Amino acid sequence: MATADLLEALRGTVGAAHVLTSGDLTAWELDWRRRWHGRALAVVRPGSTAEVAAVVRTCAEARVALVPQGGNTGLVGGGVPDASGTQVLLSLQRMNRIRALDEANLTLTAEAGCVLQALQTAARDRGLLLPLSMASEGSCTIGGNLATNAGGTQVLRWGNARELCLGLEVVTAAGEVWDGLSGLRKDNTGYDLRNLMIGSEGTLGIITAATLKLAPVPAATTTALAACDDLAQCVALLKLARGRLGAGLTGFEVMGRFALDLVARHFPALPQPLPAAPWTVLLEQSDTEGEVQARDRLESMLGAALEAGVIGDAVVAESLAQSHALWHLRESIPLAQAEEGLNVKHDISLPVSAIPAFVIDTDASLRRHFPGVRLVNFGHLGDGNLHYNVQAPEGVPGKEFLAEHEDTINTLVFDALVPYGGSFSAEHGIGVLKRDELARRKSPVALQMMRGIKGALDPLGILNPERVL
Amino acid sequence: MATADLLEALRGTVGAAHVLTSGDLTAWELDWRRRWHGRALAVVRPGSTAEVAAVVRTCAEARVALVPQGGNTGLVGGGVPDASGTQVLLSLQRMNRIRALDEANLTLTAEAGCVLQALQTAARDRGLLLPLSMASEGSCTIGGNLATNAGGTQVLRWGNARELCLGLEVVTAAGEVWDGLSGLRKDNTGYDLRNLMIGSEGTLGIITAATLKLAPVPAATTTALAACDDLAQCVALLKLARGRLGAGLTGFEVMGRFALDLVARHFPALPQPLPAAPWTVLLEQSDTEGEVQARDRLESMLGAALEAGVIGDAVVAESLAQSHALWHLRESIPLAQAEEGLNVKHDISLPVSAIPAFVIDTDASLRRHFPGVRLVNFGHLGDGNLHYNVQAPEGVPGKEFLAEHEDTINTLVFDALVPYGGSFSAEHGIGVLKRDELARRKSPVALQMMRGIKGALDPLGILNPERVL
Repeated sequence: MATADLLEALRGTVGAAHVLTSGDLTAWELDWRRRWHGRALAVVRPGSTAEVAAVVRTCAEARVALVPQGGNTGLVGGGVPDASGTQVLLSLQRMNRIRALDEANLTLTAEAGCVLQALQTAARDRGLLLPLSMASEGSCTIGGNLATNAGGTQVLRWGNARELCLGLEVVTAAGEVWDGLSGLRKDNTGYDLRNLMIGSEGTLGIITAATLKLAPVPAATTTALAACDDLAQCVALLKLARGRLGAGLTGFEVMGRFALDLVARHFPALPQPLPAAPWTVLLEQSDTEGEVQARDRLESMLGAALEAGVIGDAVVAESLAQSHALWHLRESIPLAQAEEGLNVKHDISLPVSAIPAFVIDTDASLRRHFPGVRLVNFGHLGDGNLHYNVQAPEGVPGKEFLAEHEDTINTLVFDALVPYGGSFSAEHGIGVLKRDELARRKSPVALQMMRGIKGALDPLGILNPERVL
Repeated sequence: MATADLLEALRGTVGAAHVLTSGDLTAWELDWRRRWHGRALAVVRPGSTAEVAAVVRTCAEARVALVPQGGNTGLVGGGVPDASGTQVLLSLQRMNRIRALDEANLTLTAEAGCVLQALQTAARDRGLLLPLSMASEGSCTIGGNLATNAGGTQVLRWGNARELCLGLEVVTAAGEVWDGLSGLRKDNTGYDLRNLMIGSEGTLGIITAATLKLAPVPAATTTALAACDDLAQCVALLKLARGRLGAGLTGFEVMGRFALDLVARHFPALPQPLPAAPWTVLLEQSDTEGEVQARDRLESMLGAALEAGVIGDAVVAESLAQSHALWHLRESIPLAQAEEGLNVKHDISLPVSAIPAFVIDTDASLRRHFPGVRLVNFGHLGDGNLHYNVQAPEGVPGKEFLAEHEDTINTLVFDALVPYGGSFSAEHGIGVLKRDELARRKSPVALQMMRGIKGALDPLGILNPERVL
């Protein structure tokens, strides 16, 4: 099929206004961190599942590859076209209808292009919680969240996007529609296609809608900071908090001293209510019981931790505003880091029990190889997920440091994960960025199964090619 | 390869004592409900993952099919050989080592043949909970639990077996070992092979070990009964209980009047503390807070339900013994039913919101078609999972009734699920029993994807053939 015929067919399907081939297409061709700038054969914006299916059939016939895209907030280059100008960018943003909200079943069914925040709001308007939350929630879409199995700040209690999804509607590589939009909590009828699609980054099918789990909005949320001497104490605190607060423990974030020092340096107006400690933990408790009881429980747990010598100091937020300020501190770390200069970022995970030893050993090893290197370590300790970032020595320009050492540092950190069974991509996925790493580090048996599945579900290789695999 | 050579090779791999071809093999060839009696070419009992892999390679070379089996407690005939005498029964029972228990990471790594109860005990000995529990726990194995994605009584809070599994070790159809025994809560490196294997009933790979999630043992557990006039009230009570108790709500079972009448008839010694009501709900609350607070919370929720007219009466267990007696009532329903005679059993699921209408309509339809028919309805309402069973009219022998009407009744019930998006197999799986039903009722697009995956991962078709697909 000639390109002109393909474009004509696509215009016939979705309307000429929704097939973009000229003008400024950077909103779709450039990722938001400006690391990958591709060029699309066309940006196609279908408005319905039937249109998505028809677009896929047309592209399959023409053997033209499709790159599905939601809010374009991915961190690994999985949602922008390559530079060849031969790939169709399939934007799902026009598919933004909420199809159903079932209060008794605690489910929300929404199209892939719905912005996460819009879904959170729709749930909250009915007194319900969609417990998926992350920095990009104002622009990321639920389709992208599911295609990448996004994590975020509520994983400790609620799991990743995967754990919140009960059903999917998917357009296959053949342009057929699989209606798997089940609102069932139990369904053992065949292979788990839903979870296979989730996290496959658009390489096995195109998610067009999903049914998500909701929960009642918690009655009270309380936040606290606690100071620890080392990560072993942080792990001990986590154990104590889990035992005492159970499912009420909804946040457990750890922040290394240097990470908070950077915040103090670049955002001096932000209050840091605890004296500087080697490690500071941010705890959040959300519960269905009342404010007073919830607060009592958190304070009594922290009292027990103090007595047991697990923490050196602690402070509990006195108001919602103070709670927000504590979270703001945590969320300012990436910004403070950016102010300080470029750095090598890692999104790694380990068994929680392995984290203290991993960090001690890997810190030492990095310092040996790169004298003066500065380690910005923070993350979701409760999930075993660290943002273990490496900053150039004081006074050394980040750009030069990265150009020279980024690959070596990555290899050192990723190699150090192996004995602990850690992962080099905890929540951001593979995309383009970590494709070589996956080929190098994933078990060959697993890779072979993955390739077999890809071949079976996308025999022409038209769905997001050269991503993941 | 001649059969004699195959057996010789298998004996060389696992030892002659573990290749059984004669004597009484009914422990492996007959399922425990005595519905399927197959004949195996041999019962092979490997003692390690390497031996499982070698057995699979030998069988693959000989093009001989393998039927993996754990505790042989399945309900759909998926774990016994067919009658041909050509299939190797691969028993995983000798693989019963606990490989690791990581308290700080809250994980347990165990081999497939470990009996569920042994794992529960191992966890509890360390003050931890493995929150998977079902009637067969004294003999079912964790490998079988995962291969069938077993449900049970703790799904409301903890999910099915799937939700409790972080990592798997699997022997592929080519006899290779995939070491996916991760203890990570977050790992976005490629397709979700773990969940694909879970619930695939041994048709895509043989699970040899798993890493499971643990939780702290709850400090207090309280149980209550509540009486409702109709299922709409039960659903309203569920909503109220979820809002007030949050994750503390760990059980919500519903029992129809006729189900409890059967218990009264056949087990008159069992106390039924509430007067007979159209529907009785069994609630369980487990929490990390103390006994007194937990009880207060449950009682205050029930008080609110009484005031709102959602329930007519309620009783809270005064002791652990009373709690057990209430659960015993619930667990006696299947036994009372068996005493009453054969019946048509259904393991169905629906969106919780659809259950009242489904039951009213389907009850009426069954009564119209089969005057005098008796409906035994009970199940995990919180999970949308009903055991919706159909008993012959009073005085009509169950055997004759089933012979004449079982197929018609199944069709009527399964057809009634369709408009509500329900499932004809909520937790028991497909196996042999529901294979035709799956072919008939599953979306053709989903079936095609499933067949593609089966072909990719087991191209010779030697893993549990003619099960599921």
